[in-house]
Amino acid sequence: MTYSNIASDPLLLTPGPLTTSVSVKRAMLHDLGSRDKTFIDLTERIRLRLTSIAQVEDTHVCIPLQGSGTFVVEAMMSTLLAEADKILILANGAYGQRIVKICARHGINHEVLEWPENEPVDPVQVSLHLSENESITHVVVVHCETTTGIINPLQEIADVVAISGRLLLIDSMSAFGAIPLGLASDKFTAVAASSNKCLQGLPGVGFCIVSKSAIQNAQGNSKSLVLDLHDQWKGFELNKQWRFTPPTHVLLGFDQALNEFDAEGGINARHKRYNENCKVLVDGMRSMGFETLLPDAVQAPIIVTFLMPADPNFAFEKFYDELADRGYVIYPGKLTVAETFRMGCIGDLNASQISAAVDCVREVIELMHVKSGAPS
Amino acid sequence: MTYSNIASDPLLLTPGPLTTSVSVKRAMLHDLGSRDKTFIDLTERIRLRLTSIAQVEDTHVCIPLQGSGTFVVEAMMSTLLAEADKILILANGAYGQRIVKICARHGINHEVLEWPENEPVDPVQVSLHLSENESITHVVVVHCETTTGIINPLQEIADVVAISGRLLLIDSMSAFGAIPLGLASDKFTAVAASSNKCLQGLPGVGFCIVSKSAIQNAQGNSKSLVLDLHDQWKGFELNKQWRFTPPTHVLLGFDQALNEFDAEGGINARHKRYNENCKVLVDGMRSMGFETLLPDAVQAPIIVTFLMPADPNFAFEKFYDELADRGYVIYPGKLTVAETFRMGCIGDLNASQISAAVDCVREVIELMHVKSGAPS
Repeated sequence: MTYSNIASDPLLLTPGPLTTSVSVKRAMLHDLGSRDKTFIDLTERIRLRLTSIAQVEDTHVCIPLQGSGTFVVEAMMSTLLAEADKILILANGAYGQRIVKICARHGINHEVLEWPENEPVDPVQVSLHLSENESITHVVVVHCETTTGIINPLQEIADVVAISGRLLLIDSMSAFGAIPLGLASDKFTAVAASSNKCLQGLPGVGFCIVSKSAIQNAQGNSKSLVLDLHDQWKGFELNKQWRFTPPTHVLLGFDQALNEFDAEGGINARHKRYNENCKVLVDGMRSMGFETLLPDAVQAPIIVTFLMPADPNFAFEKFYDELADRGYVIYPGKLTVAETFRMGCIGDLNASQISAAVDCVREVIELMHVKSGAPS
Repeated sequence: MTYSNIASDPLLLTPGPLTTSVSVKRAMLHDLGSRDKTFIDLTERIRLRLTSIAQVEDTHVCIPLQGSGTFVVEAMMSTLLAEADKILILANGAYGQRIVKICARHGINHEVLEWPENEPVDPVQVSLHLSENESITHVVVVHCETTTGIINPLQEIADVVAISGRLLLIDSMSAFGAIPLGLASDKFTAVAASSNKCLQGLPGVGFCIVSKSAIQNAQGNSKSLVLDLHDQWKGFELNKQWRFTPPTHVLLGFDQALNEFDAEGGINARHKRYNENCKVLVDGMRSMGFETLLPDAVQAPIIVTFLMPADPNFAFEKFYDELADRGYVIYPGKLTVAETFRMGCIGDLNASQISAAVDCVREVIELMHVKSGAPS
C-alpha cells in the first residue's frame, strides 16, 4: 500500500480524525527532543494560546495530555472530583453516558439527569434538581453531543449552576475553537477538548483548561498516575516539561494548526465557515429528500445526523463505499433511537468542497436507484 | 520559528523521542478516517507484526494504546492484576520505581525487591524471595532500565518465575525490537513497549502483548476506562476498530517504521547496528577520559550513562548547549546516586553519525578547556 499522492486522499466528513491542511501535516516532519528548549517553548506557547482562546488567561491554566479526547475527560473527572464530592451528569447522548461510565469506574459519587438524544439539556430541570439535591457539588455537561450533533445551552446551564453555587465541568471536545464557550471565567471550573476537532490539529493530544484554584486543590484525587492532571500541571510548573514522553510530532502540527486558526480569524471566522459548510450540506441533502434528526434550532455546525432513507434500494454499506470511492468518507450513526448516518462539517473543508460532496451523494443515490432520501 | 530544512534537524542522542527516518515522518502526511477500511487494515497489520516480532503469534494478542509508554505500563498493571493478586516488583531504576507508584495509586497489592541503579536484578534473590512469599502471584521487571542503560537478565528471571509457578510481566519499553526477549511464549504473560523506541516509529502510541488466557480473564480489573486493556482488546475483537480516537498519523508512521525494520533485517540487524553505535560511542568517549557508569557486561546498546567529568572547566549546561548548536541533542542524567549525563545509541542513526557526534564532543571539551572527561 502506498500513499503517494496527498491530493488523492479522501475528504473526511467525520467528527475526527478529520481532514487537516497539508501545512499542518508537514509541520510534523521534524524530530524534536522533548527536553530540548525548542520543544519546551513550543509546549509553553500552545498552552498559552489555548487559555487565550477560552479567554481565561488570568484565572485558568491549560494542561495538555497524551491520548484521545476521552483520556482528557477521564483525567478531568478523576482529578477534579474528591472523595467528598458528588457530580451531576447531564446526559443526552453517548458522550454524556461515557462520563457516567468513567464515574462508575473511578467510584466517583454521581447522579445522572437524562434527556432523549434529540433534545437539548433543559436548564430549568437542572436548576430544580440542584435545589432538591444539596449533596451535589459539581455539574458536568457535554457542549456539543457528537452522537447527534446537538448543541446544549451552555450559558443557561452555567447560569443555573453558578446561581446554585455548584462548580461546572464541560466536555467541549467537538465544539472548542468553533463555538465560543461564551462564559466568564468564574462561570466554569474546567473544560476538556482536543487538538483534533475544530482546532484542526492531529489526533494524539487533548487538553483541559482548569481554574487555578481547582487544580491547586486537586492533589491526591486521581487514582491513576498518567491521568493525574494535578501532577501533569505540577510537571509543567516545575520545568515546563511533560512528565511522560509527549507526542512531539502531533504537537508540532498542533502549533501550526493554531497559526492557521489565528490566520483564519479565530473562533468567529471558524464558526462562520462551519456554519456555511453545515448549511450547504443540510440544504443539499434536504433537496434530495434526506431529513435531519434535529431541528435547525439545536443543530450545531459540527456534525449532522441524517435519518436512513426508507427507499428499499438504499443500502448504507453500498452508499458508504460508493462515496468513499469518490473521495468522501462519512460516518455511521451512534444512536439508540433511530437508524441514522452522520456527515461532518468540520476540518479543513470549505463550502465548495461540501457542495461537491453533496453532488456525489446525488450521483450515488441515482446509481443506487434511490428515488428519495426521505425516511419512513 | 521555522523548520524548513529537515536535513538541519539535530540528531537526537536520547532515549526518545528519537531520530526517525524521513520516510517514517513522511508516512504521516495523510488523513485517514479511523473507522474506514484502510485504517482498520493498517491497525490489524501492525498488531500482527508486533506479535510476530515477539514470536508469540499463536498464544498472545497485541493491544495498542494511545499515549506514552507509561500509559501502557499503567494499563498493563491495572488490567492484569486482580484484587486477589499480588505482584513482586523488581526495581533497579526510575522505571521500576514508577511501577511501584502505579501500584500504589491503583491499590494493587505489591512488594518491591530493590537493587542499586548500577547493578542488574539478581535472579537468585528473586527465586529466594518467591519461595519465601507464597502470596505473590506475579512478577514484573524492566528489561532495559533507561535510567542507566542497564540490561536485566530476562531469561534467567523468567526461568525462576516460571519454575516458581508465577506469572511474568515485562516493561521492555526501551529494548523491544532491538534486544530479543529470548523467551518461549509460555515464559511471559505480557510485555509492554512503544512505537517510539527501537522500532523507530513516532511517539504517541504504545502496545502491550498479552497472553490470550490472561486477557480473557482480565475483565473488570481496571478502574480506568481508557486504560482498560481488556476492553480495548474486546473492541479490536468486535470490529477491528479502536474504542477511542487513535492517533492515525502516528500509526501510519509506525507501519512504515515496521517496513523499515523488516527491510533492515529485523531484531538481529537492529541489535547489530545499535551495538556498533554503542561501541563507537563508548570507545570514543573513553578515549577522552570519560567513564561509563556501568561495566560493559551489563551495558545495553540503548543508552549510555557517563559520569560527570571532574575538570572544573566542565559545565554540563554549556556542554549540552554547544553540542545542541552543533546538531546533537544529548540527555540529562536521572540517577539518584551520581552526577551523570546520558547519550543514546538508538533511532535512525549509524556508526558514522555517532562518530561525528564523538568528534563534536572532542571539539566542545577543547573549547571549554576541559583536559579530560575523567570523573572524580
